[in-house]
Formats: sequence, structure tokens, C-alpha cells
Amino acid sequence: MPASNGMEGATSTCFSDADPNLRHLPKIADKIQYRQLEGRPFFSFEYFPPKTEQGVSNLYQRVERMTAAEPLFCDVTWGAGGSTSDLTLSLSGNIQKYLGVDVMMHLTCTNMPSGNVLEGLEGAKALGIRNILALRGDPPAGKEWTKCEDGFEHGTDLVRFIRANYGDYFGICVAGYPEGHPAGFLDGKMSFEDEMKHLKDKVDAGADFIITQMFYDVDCYLKFVRSCREQGITIPILPGILPIQNYMGFKRMTGFCKTKVPQAILDAIEQIKDNDVAVKQFGVRLGVDMCRRILKSGLSPGIHFYTLNLEKSAMAIIDQLDLIPQTESIRSLPWRPATVDKRRNENVRPIFWANRPKSYLDRTSTWDEYPNGRWGDNRSPAYGDLREYHLLGGGGWCSAAHRKDAAARYGELNDFEDVVDVFTRFQKGELKRLPWSETEELASETLVISAPLVWLNKNGLLTINSQPRVNAAPSSDVTVGWGSPGGYVYQKAYVEFFAKPQIVDALFEAAKDIPSLTIYAAKVKNDELRTNAKTKTTCAVTWGVFPDREIVQPTVVDPQSFKAWKSEAFAVWENVWADLYPKDSPSRKVLKELHDTLYLVNVVDNDYVGGDIFAVFKTVLASPTHASLFA
Amino acid sequence: MPASNGMEGATSTCFSDADPNLRHLPKIADKIQYRQLEGRPFFSFEYFPPKTEQGVSNLYQRVERMTAAEPLFCDVTWGAGGSTSDLTLSLSGNIQKYLGVDVMMHLTCTNMPSGNVLEGLEGAKALGIRNILALRGDPPAGKEWTKCEDGFEHGTDLVRFIRANYGDYFGICVAGYPEGHPAGFLDGKMSFEDEMKHLKDKVDAGADFIITQMFYDVDCYLKFVRSCREQGITIPILPGILPIQNYMGFKRMTGFCKTKVPQAILDAIEQIKDNDVAVKQFGVRLGVDMCRRILKSGLSPGIHFYTLNLEKSAMAIIDQLDLIPQTESIRSLPWRPATVDKRRNENVRPIFWANRPKSYLDRTSTWDEYPNGRWGDNRSPAYGDLREYHLLGGGGWCSAAHRKDAAARYGELNDFEDVVDVFTRFQKGELKRLPWSETEELASETLVISAPLVWLNKNGLLTINSQPRVNAAPSSDVTVGWGSPGGYVYQKAYVEFFAKPQIVDALFEAAKDIPSLTIYAAKVKNDELRTNAKTKTTCAVTWGVFPDREIVQPTVVDPQSFKAWKSEAFAVWENVWADLYPKDSPSRKVLKELHDTLYLVNVVDNDYVGGDIFAVFKTVLASPTHASLFA
Repeated sequence: MPASNGMEGATSTCFSDADPNLRHLPKIADKIQYRQLEGRPFFSFEYFPPKTEQGVSNLYQRVERMTAAEPLFCDVTWGAGGSTSDLTLSLSGNIQKYLGVDVMMHLTCTNMPSGNVLEGLEGAKALGIRNILALRGDPPAGKEWTKCEDGFEHGTDLVRFIRANYGDYFGICVAGYPEGHPAGFLDGKMSFEDEMKHLKDKVDAGADFIITQMFYDVDCYLKFVRSCREQGITIPILPGILPIQNYMGFKRMTGFCKTKVPQAILDAIEQIKDNDVAVKQFGVRLGVDMCRRILKSGLSPGIHFYTLNLEKSAMAIIDQLDLIPQTESIRSLPWRPATVDKRRNENVRPIFWANRPKSYLDRTSTWDEYPNGRWGDNRSPAYGDLREYHLLGGGGWCSAAHRKDAAARYGELNDFEDVVDVFTRFQKGELKRLPWSETEELASETLVISAPLVWLNKNGLLTINSQPRVNAAPSSDVTVGWGSPGGYVYQKAYVEFFAKPQIVDALFEAAKDIPSLTIYAAKVKNDELRTNAKTKTTCAVTWGVFPDREIVQPTVVDPQSFKAWKSEAFAVWENVWADLYPKDSPSRKVLKELHDTLYLVNVVDNDYVGGDIFAVFKTVLASPTHASLFA
Repeated sequence: MPASNGMEGATSTCFSDADPNLRHLPKIADKIQYRQLEGRPFFSFEYFPPKTEQGVSNLYQRVERMTAAEPLFCDVTWGAGGSTSDLTLSLSGNIQKYLGVDVMMHLTCTNMPSGNVLEGLEGAKALGIRNILALRGDPPAGKEWTKCEDGFEHGTDLVRFIRANYGDYFGICVAGYPEGHPAGFLDGKMSFEDEMKHLKDKVDAGADFIITQMFYDVDCYLKFVRSCREQGITIPILPGILPIQNYMGFKRMTGFCKTKVPQAILDAIEQIKDNDVAVKQFGVRLGVDMCRRILKSGLSPGIHFYTLNLEKSAMAIIDQLDLIPQTESIRSLPWRPATVDKRRNENVRPIFWANRPKSYLDRTSTWDEYPNGRWGDNRSPAYGDLREYHLLGGGGWCSAAHRKDAAARYGELNDFEDVVDVFTRFQKGELKRLPWSETEELASETLVISAPLVWLNKNGLLTINSQPRVNAAPSSDVTVGWGSPGGYVYQKAYVEFFAKPQIVDALFEAAKDIPSLTIYAAKVKNDELRTNAKTKTTCAVTWGVFPDREIVQPTVVDPQSFKAWKSEAFAVWENVWADLYPKDSPSRKVLKELHDTLYLVNVVDNDYVGGDIFAVFKTVLASPTHASLFA
């Protein structure tokens, strides 16, 4: 348990003490303070807006993967002179909304009138972004820096402007220059003392924390931090680390930023400059050494990485620094909580969207609180901007090439057996993704039940969602654990699948002998659900018991949202899967027919202590009806 | 599970399917319909307002005991001509509010102008009573029946009046006369057909069900029910059974009501008329036989008892009829739910008032919903009318005799050891009640931990509340079970006690090695609680997991309500206990000093799977500090 003394107010919301991302704290500076109190170092990642649509799509997927390691926040740069402002905004907004990590948006005031700055801030606010990195910024390439008519001269002016217009709404970060600002101090226009005074002004204007320009001289950085403290700058200072990726890039960047590089580093890299792999490895080793020294100094509570949108080096460094907890669960809830303000205290979701969390976040984004919202009529995935959805990895195929690739993976579908084969290959791990899933990863907990799931799929029960039963696993369990340490977590076994009507009939019949099973089933056109439930109420299927807490029940099955989910789940047959194949192709025909005739079924086994959810299917599949299924 | 088909709306609220009292249904007729659908016969009890205050107090305690057997409802008579209207109202209101059973209030229109009737109905409504037995009523003794100027002639007029003024707010019952109305039919003024027509009118005017006048001729009753059905009277009809208590009473009642008594019964009773015990036994045997025949006929779904405020005969009959479930839990929640409208869906209470539920109901009666209410400053038990509270068994001693008796039981208190002795005797079962408890019964679950509790008390930890840990007991478990069948219930171990400061210091010290323990402690004058809790949040200490349900967590420990409870718990030392002794007596002085110096402490062991809440006290009591406690 974290030492939360002195931050009682901050920790009173649900599960903050188990949440590595501290989602209940919208301001990064508060998160930093909390982690400082805990004595647990953190890291953060910076990204820039890619130039192509494919690049954007790749970046989203990279951010999503890297976010799984729980950076304290990530930030997105602002093109010089606002050149990428729209993309910066949409990237920042989507990461904030869909990926469950707090985003700090960069904002520069160079060559921009205050009206444009206001536009950027309004945009950020509308997207739920609560943190801004306020920069003067560089001029666009080839241009000189100029102060606009009604614009800003220094970063200080921007900080003041934000505080004047938004009060405490935004957390504000400013840049620090351990070696002095390249545009001033180094070419003699500004002394180190001037630079310090300038930084003190930015802090006094309302900055919450500082991230430094990249550097390779740790002594210089530590001296800088000590100088700041002497000047009365008490806010947190994070070192900006740029792992060396390759020789040319390194030379270009350090040249452009006029970065001081210690001779030993220069010597070492010169010797391996033609070996890209060796340079990268050296970059990681150097990064690890630098970070170790910095963290050991106690002068900085965490590390900020300039990732250049690259994944491996930064991840390797944090891995070697042991900054990612490996031996126990770090999930605060069984699903990844969102960071937009209205969802910070969200604590329950229907199980149905487990593999489509982005779709769920989008569909419920206007709700005040689940389950108080009302589902509209959603005959198709109600994802506002489907292009954005695909870019985010939602549909999985944003480009023609991706689509072709996916179609090839699934292959031609000539009959039900071909479809059964796709599902079976997916369950066996031979196929990356089903059209019903937003990501390529199978939840590790389903491995426990992969054998019976393969068996179900082979037999024509096409599973798209499931969880094993869990009876009082420690909350720290790596596979199924979540929430504060010292608790116990539970799950009712769940399986959801498409199946032919004969199977469904046989299932309801067989379930008569097993009172612990609750089944809901419907075809695409059924407005009413078929069920054996005596009362159509909400059923918790995942819950946890923790010290000094109310019971937390984050995942439920309820008939109302199943109706909404059903529409979406059926639409995937046509809108996502069939759409990959040419019009009038046999594959489309097969998928269309299954869309029209299959049932979507969900089964909960209420006996989480001793039940076997698969037992009923043995009865179902032993029946003579089943023998005729493939006839 | 009840066959709830066709009553889905009715069963969607929490736990109705496990609630023998069907508290979610305010109207008795709806409860009857539900029980008919379940095929589970019920019973109900009628009481009359006693003449003395002691009688009222005795009646409350009797009703509370009888209510534990879960009658479907109980009803309170209305003195002839409104002679007991105030007492009828307060009895009905208090039973409804405090005893967790729905009350049907009688209302007669004889010799009463409509204004008085309206007053009675308004009073009932204000008290949360939802059911009225509408009667013409008998004239006060010695008077002739007269129609008031603006009054009513028949029961039918009263039914119409209620429906006209209150719509569907009240459920309405009317009287049926299997042998004809004594004032009419029997003396030739009215035929059986007239009587039937009269009843049909009452039903058409809006009655929901019928209770008959007492009878001893079952054939006559069954014939009456069949006649009603033939006349198109389809509402439920309950037989009114008056168990024969003694010979003289039997003769008087049957004479007054002109009741037809079968010759065989008359013969049998004449033979034993001088043996009171034998008459009573005969009455029970006869009642059982009559009820068996009636229930077997399928014409009535339950039995109504005219108890004459007596307990044993009615209880013996329902016991022999096996109408009280014995082999599994019949509790819908771990505490007895209330039946007033605003509390029908109440599903959480702090554990602190477990032994003082009436005080809790009173203190929170103006709240919209726990825990949304705010505790006021309650330095003393905030029980509105303390006299009522005592009458209800709250303080336990409503009369001087009772008080004297209690003081004698506790004995003279010369020092802390004498007080320790009182608590220890209580834990051993040698003393009926502690001043902190509203009833004389120890919860059966505490028997499991009675040995360690005795040990704690012997050692100066004066326990007033506790529960053992429970890890997944079946919800049907007779001792700790509650809620729907097929579920599992859980408890965190809890113990609450008064103790000297040295003990409390040692406890906090010893608990440092046991992270699963959460302790709150305070003296009477402490505004702030001493605690080792890292976050002062609400902690569920009793919860249940049920098929197709959200997790139910009906009992919690939270620091806010502990503060409110603390004031009440300390006040008991002075206002309830010390108050039994003469002013300036040594006993008063001892109690006052303990009131001023002891801590009230509560301990939760969050490890409900494998914890031992008593282990920490072994360390505490082994310390040298403790040795000096009695010095």
C-alpha cells in the first residue's frame, strides 16, 4: 500500500492506490507529487504527429502498446508555428479518450497570434486534455523567430496567458535548459544566470513542473537542478532523455540543439558508428546509466523520454531500470480505465465490449454515468468517425493493403465450415485477430480455458468473448488480479458465441438441469431476448473485495446493454468482415447468411465456487441434433 | 426460487425472491398474490390496543417476537366508535416503522362523522401505513348503531370513501361473514343472499381481499368461499381463526358473535372445561385441524389469526402446520429490513447499530437514502420520544419495576472489575441484556466466537458488538445465511468494545504487524478518530453474491457514521445505565468515570479468508501494560 498520508483527499476516490496511472488525478504535477511521496520513480513518453495516415495508425498502436507499461503521462508535440495543430489536437484527444493515459499537449506561441493560441487551448479543453506544455517554440524551418503583433515573446507570456484565461483548469509544464537555451545563452546573448531568472519567471507565472531539453551530460543536468533549487524553484524537474537510435540522427540532433556531449560518449560512438545495431544497444546502455545516476541522485522523481515515435529503445531502458512491475498485477480494474474527466470515477462496464473498449468508450461518451445512459438504436457500430476508429486500430484495417492482408488471412469462405475454421485458428493462436476484436492480443486469462474454447469453436460455437471463473484469487495475481494489494478478486465464468438455432435450442434444454447457468440469446432481428433468467436484472461477473473498501464490481452482464451490443456484434459480420471481400463474392454470401441466421448467445455460470461452464456443452454437443449441424 | 413468471415488475427490486415478508410490495393483496403464485401458504396476526402502558410495552415485545416468524402482515383493531383511535394509530405506526412488518390498520365508520374517518386515514398515511381494514364496526358497548349525520351506513360506503379520496394509495380489506352478519342475517333481517350481495358491493367498491369473521365450522367456511366465487367475487379470502384459549372466553366470544359451533367441538370442550391447560391444548389441536382442512381445500392461500394479543396458541398452530421455515435461512438481508415506503429498497446500514436497530431507524428516518443523509450532533440517543422508545423495548426498562429489576441484575458497581463482571456474565449468557442492546437476544452467529469474547471481556475489553468472519457460506445457511437461494455470503470479522487507553495504545502497536486489521478508536470527547486506516473510506463487512445479481453489501463500517454512533454509545453509560442507580451512588460514579475515560474501539479484520481477529489481542493482553490494568 502506498504511503498515502497527507494526501487523503486525493486518495478517497476508487482504487487510486492500485492505479499506476493515477487516473483520479487529472494534473500531471499532482501525479508526480503522489509518486514522489510513494518513492516510486516513473517515466513518460513524448510523441510527434506523423506525416502520413499510415504513420498515424502505426503511432496509435505503438502508443497503445507502450501505454500498457503505464507511463505516468505522454505528450504530443505541436508543429513549429502551429503547422500540425489539427493533427496534434486529434492525436492528443484520441489518446486521452481511448487509451487511458493522460496526455500533455504541447503548445508553442512562436509566430502565432493570441487568437490561435486560444483556439489551441479551447480545442484541448474540448477534448478533455488537462495538461499543456507551454513553449515559446522554434520558428518554422528556414524562418526567423518573430513576435506576432498581438502575440507572445517568451514562454512566460504563454504561461501567464493560460493562467489568466483558464485559471487552474490546465496543469502547465515548461521547458528547462540545463545547458542554456540554444537560441540564447550558448551564442553569448544570455548568461546562465539570465536563463535561470527566465525559468524562475516561468515558474512564478504558474508552471507546475519542468521538463528539460535533451542532454547527455548528467553532471550538467544535476548541476542545473541544484541551481534551480538554489534559485527557489521548487517544482519537480524531469530530465529529457533521448536514447541514441543511430549515428547520423544523433549527430544531427545534438548539432541542431547544440547539445554538449561528453568526450567519452563521443569516443565510444565514433568507434561503432557504422554498426547500427551496436549504436542502438549503446544508446540503451547509455540511457540506462544516465537514468540510474539521475534517479539515484534523488533530484528527479522520474524520467521523460523523447521517443521520436520509436518504441524499442525507450521500452528497453525502462525495462532494464525495472520501472515496470512484473511480478504482480498493476491493473487498477479488470479493464483499462479512461482518463477523460467524466470517466475518472467510472467503475462498471458491461462485459460485452471487453474486446472493443474503444467502441464502448465512443458509444457511451455522452453518458453521464453508466448505467444511467440509454442505448440508442444501434444497428451498426455507432462509432462516430469510422476513419478515426480504424486509425486507432478499432476495425483493424485502415488501408487497402491492411484490408487485403486481412482478407488473405481469413481466406475464401465457401461454407460454414470455413468460418468455423477461422474461429478455430484464432482460438489456437494461429490467427492474429477476429473482426470482433480491436486488438491483436488475447487476454492472458483466456489461455486457462483455451482448450475448451478451441473445442467449442471446432464444434460450431463461434466464441467472441469469455472469461474463466475465479474464486478468491489474490488481487496481486499477475493473470487475473487487479485493484489494491491485499484484496481478493472473483469472476463468474462467461462465454459468448454465435451458434446455429439447433445448438441454442439444445442449450436451453440442457441448461434446465443446471440451475446455476443463465443464458441470453437473440438473432439479429429479435427485439426480445430468449432467456432462462427468472429476473432480468444486472449480474456482476467480476468483483473484488479489498481492505477498507466497499465491494467493487467492475464488470456486469445486463440484458439492456446486451441488446445494444447484439446490434453491434451482428453488424460486424457485414460491415467489418464481409466488407473485406468483393461484392457478390461467395465469401460475402456466406457471411451474410450467417449474419441472418445465427444466434448470439451469452452464458454466465453463477457458481463461481465449483461450477464448470463447459459441462453443459458436452450434453449439447452429444445430442443427435448436433451431428446434423455440418450436414 | 419462487416462480416469479408473470410478476417480473414486482420482483425486479432487490431480494424480493428471498424476502418472506415481501417488503417490496406495500399492498397486502399483492403479497397474497405473490405467495399464491409461489404456492406457499402464509399467516397473519391481529392485535388490539391494550389498556395500560405496561400492556402496550408487552405487546410491542410480543409482536416483535411473533414477527420473527414472518407473518405476511399484522393488523391492529380500531376501538368501537374510534375509542382507541390514537393508540391504534401509534401502535400501527410504530410496528410499521420499527418492526419490519406491514401493518393493516382497522378503521370503522360506526358512530363517526366522515371528518373523523378522514383524520384516521390521514394519520395512517402520515405513518406510512398502506393497508386498511374497512369495517362498519360495532357500536360502543351499550349503544345502538346509528348513522351519523354526514357519516356512513355500510362498510361499502367506507370503501368507496377511501377509494374516492386516496385512489390506489391504500390496500383495502373488508370483512366476510360465513355465517352471515350477526347483526343482520341471523336475526332474520337479512338473507344469506342479501349478505352475499352486500359483500359483492364492497368488493365492487374497491376491496382487495376479504378476512372472515371467526368461525369453528370449516364446512360452513368452505361453502361461503365457494358461494363468493359463484357470485363473481374473485379476490382472496382469508379465514379468521380464533384459537380457543379457555372455556369462559370461548363461550363469551361465540355467544357475542352468535358463532355456530359444531356439536362435536362443544361436546369435546365441555368434558375438559375445568382444565385450562387441556382447553388450551385442545384449542391448538382444533386450530391445526381447521387450518389443515382449509389450506388443503386450495380455497384460501393463508390463515388469519385473531391472537387476542396472545402468543402461544397461534405460534403453536403455525409451528405444527410447518409454516415457519426451519431448515434454512429466511432472512432477505442480514438485518431486518423496514417496511415504510422510503426504506423498502434500503440495502445498506452501518454495523454499529446492529443491536439497536430501532434507534437507527429513528435517527435516519428523515434521510432520503443512506449514506446520503448527514448525521447531526447526537450527544445523546436522539430517539424522538424516549417514552415510545422504551415502550418499544428500546431502553429495555419502561417502568419503575423494570428499572429496579435491571439495577438488581447489574448489581452495585464499586469499581471497574464489577463492570467487567457484568459484561462477562452477559457474554456467558448469565445476564439477559446489556444497556447497549434493544433486545434480549444474542445473535446466534456470535455463539461461534463466544469463548474468545468471554476472554476479551474478562480482560477488560468490554465488547458490545461483533461478528465472526464468514468465507462463502451458502446463502441458505441457518446461522449466517441471508438472501436468495443459490448464493454465497461473506463477512469480515468485527469486534467493537470499550477499553482503557493503555489497551488501545497496545492494540495500535500490535496491529502494526498485522496489515489486515483496521482500527478506529475514540474517547467521548475526541472529535477526531484514532485510526491506522490509510484511507478513511467505507468498508463492506457483510456481502453476498447471488445468481443473476449485482453484489449486495448490506453492512458497512464507515468513519462518518462511527462518529455519530460513538456519541450514542457513550451516552448509554450515563443516560441508560447510570440512570438506573440513585443519584450520588457509587455505581453512578463508577459508570461516569468509565464514560469519561474509556475508548470506544472497532476492529475489522479484512482477511475474511484466513484471518484470526483475536490473534492481535493475545499480543495486547500478554504485554506488561495489561498486567497493571486492574491494579
